[in-house]
Amino acid sequence: MISEKYISWGNAGSTIRELAAYGAERAKIVGRENVYDFTIGSPSIAPPKALLDTVSRLCAEADPTQLHAYAPAAGIESVREKIARELNESFGADYDAGDIYMTHGASSALAILCAALLSEGDEALVIAPYFPEYKTYIEQTGAVMTEVLCDLESFQMDMGAFAGKITEKTAAVIINSPNNPSGVVLSEGSISAIAAVLNKKAEEYGHPIYIIADEPYRELVYGGIEVPFIPGLYADTLYCYSFSKSVSLPGERIGYIAISKAMADYSNVKAAVYGAARALGYVCVSPLFQLAVAETLGELSDIFLYDENRTLLYDALQEMGYRCIKPDGAFYLFIKTPVSDSRAFCRKAMEKDLLLVPGDDFGCPGFARLAYCVPVERIKKSLPAFKWLAEEYGL
Amino acid sequence: MISEKYISWGNAGSTIRELAAYGAERAKIVGRENVYDFTIGSPSIAPPKALLDTVSRLCAEADPTQLHAYAPAAGIESVREKIARELNESFGADYDAGDIYMTHGASSALAILCAALLSEGDEALVIAPYFPEYKTYIEQTGAVMTEVLCDLESFQMDMGAFAGKITEKTAAVIINSPNNPSGVVLSEGSISAIAAVLNKKAEEYGHPIYIIADEPYRELVYGGIEVPFIPGLYADTLYCYSFSKSVSLPGERIGYIAISKAMADYSNVKAAVYGAARALGYVCVSPLFQLAVAETLGELSDIFLYDENRTLLYDALQEMGYRCIKPDGAFYLFIKTPVSDSRAFCRKAMEKDLLLVPGDDFGCPGFARLAYCVPVERIKKSLPAFKWLAEEYGL
Repeated sequence: MISEKYISWGNAGSTIRELAAYGAERAKIVGRENVYDFTIGSPSIAPPKALLDTVSRLCAEADPTQLHAYAPAAGIESVREKIARELNESFGADYDAGDIYMTHGASSALAILCAALLSEGDEALVIAPYFPEYKTYIEQTGAVMTEVLCDLESFQMDMGAFAGKITEKTAAVIINSPNNPSGVVLSEGSISAIAAVLNKKAEEYGHPIYIIADEPYRELVYGGIEVPFIPGLYADTLYCYSFSKSVSLPGERIGYIAISKAMADYSNVKAAVYGAARALGYVCVSPLFQLAVAETLGELSDIFLYDENRTLLYDALQEMGYRCIKPDGAFYLFIKTPVSDSRAFCRKAMEKDLLLVPGDDFGCPGFARLAYCVPVERIKKSLPAFKWLAEEYGL
Repeated sequence: MISEKYISWGNAGSTIRELAAYGAERAKIVGRENVYDFTIGSPSIAPPKALLDTVSRLCAEADPTQLHAYAPAAGIESVREKIARELNESFGADYDAGDIYMTHGASSALAILCAALLSEGDEALVIAPYFPEYKTYIEQTGAVMTEVLCDLESFQMDMGAFAGKITEKTAAVIINSPNNPSGVVLSEGSISAIAAVLNKKAEEYGHPIYIIADEPYRELVYGGIEVPFIPGLYADTLYCYSFSKSVSLPGERIGYIAISKAMADYSNVKAAVYGAARALGYVCVSPLFQLAVAETLGELSDIFLYDENRTLLYDALQEMGYRCIKPDGAFYLFIKTPVSDSRAFCRKAMEKDLLLVPGDDFGCPGFARLAYCVPVERIKKSLPAFKWLAEEYGL
């Protein structure tokens, strides 16, 4: 009666988490400063001071029976109002508090949306490279994950390939921009082209095809680039946000889903989101952190430090002969491995305690992901190991 | 493609939550002190001072990029070690850190366990009266919830009825003691009798039947009563605990699952728990609150204040002619309604802004639940309304 599916997911674990755990073990042996761990996307920059001060002040001053009490399942009304207002002001959107559902970060938002929107036999399309947990959230519902590879030169959409993957069974497409692991921001042109295809196919098949926009990295962009707001370009979009990266609170699990009134089946989608969250065991998000992020909405961690890391690492790797698209956002480099077997490449790197994640885990073999949300010293100190690795492969 | 199941759960909401929201609205009109809200089991007593001090100290002193970082999915190793040790010392159990899976409170633990242990076509048995969300967690998996009514005089098990409800399809039984809503603690005799039935049936049917022990109220017991430790009496028990009630942190969502090594299918159950948590979108529990509860493990909110409320309200209601078993635990009274239509009774009570939850919601019509985790002044001030209600029904 125990489902094999859960046993296998439990036993498989996550390569990223396992590599990070390996790194922690190695650190005990060779010293933390000698492990060049670029595996996990956990922010290295502190949360904004105003946010931390607000957390401390609430803990010191608020009535603890109120502060730590159950919050409404969908979130504290005033918090949802502030978030709706910010989205409306930033993107000309039309959300009100009732359209915002607070979640335990983007992961729980994605799991809830997959449950709400997908059923046995449906397909959900993801664009490789993609965040590996998508597969689990999709398959948990009985639906099937289908994949389409992006253009491996630009990491923008390959529109021909994309259109070819939409079938009558496609219920949703997950889009993640700025992208983990490539760091690429999908252009407005790409999004509009996707929207045109989906509108046409939805009409042809007589049912909506939802976009799930997974945007934890929205503010982590460099060089003044604009991230298109997908709900403004495609009506049937569910927008997922997380405070994990932008204000460096990944462990506290706070984010939200925004449900557009323009959706064809708005009230059913909204009810299904509420119902799915309930059925998956979500009761409420920490009122302490809800109040703190809402009070300091718009404050960000010092993102420019990631930009410095990005330039330092990108330039050094280019110089050594590695090939990689210069990312506009997030905090990852996705380098082309000099051999097609990227798992072998990452194993080789481990000989110098250089920890990278094979692209295979993101549905994109032949590449490796480097998370550069690390102390700058780690990058500087790791360069000889990258150099050694380049020489091993004759770059 | 949107499942009707989620739409209906989203639209239905929870009677308890809706009544609490109604109470909040009424409070705006007639004043908070004039609404006698006994609906929601949210602690009225502050968390232990040592716990609050630890939260504040961690916020002030710990490196925020560490404190708020991703924790391991199953929990921080040192936290799980402390919890395992406490269980072993208290109950002669044999857990180690790897057997403890930190969850977002008991609700997420239950949702995870239902996903891990139940499949389409299975049955999960609950004992009425029961926490209404059980139904959602069970049906989310495609399994069917079956019910057995306890003995309505003692609120202990009706063993004949219980045994009659176990079928070849029964995969799990959820037991909640101290019970929400009756407050009754199942005796060791009852648990042993349940264990004997399940062992016999499991052997007969050739598959394990799990007990899911839902124990957020374990420490909320009065008069020195002992709560039997179910995993010590039945090997195939998954133990769920929450810090929501014992240390008054319901909004912060922290609890755990303990997986017994004595289970017949230990390693598969453990893998399935890890896999189900992952698939439902759980990433980690707040490291801030994990560290804080672990550091102050054993500290409790001032439970004796609930005991005072219990005695005050119970004695007053008895005096007025209401019938109710005196509860040994939790913070609820489950009164017999003087008419069989308990919804009508609760609606009548609302005329005096007296908010109670009909027993129907707990699978037990003819009763109403009063949560006495409220300021003592509310109880005192509510007594005339209870008196009026008693007279309306000729008690």
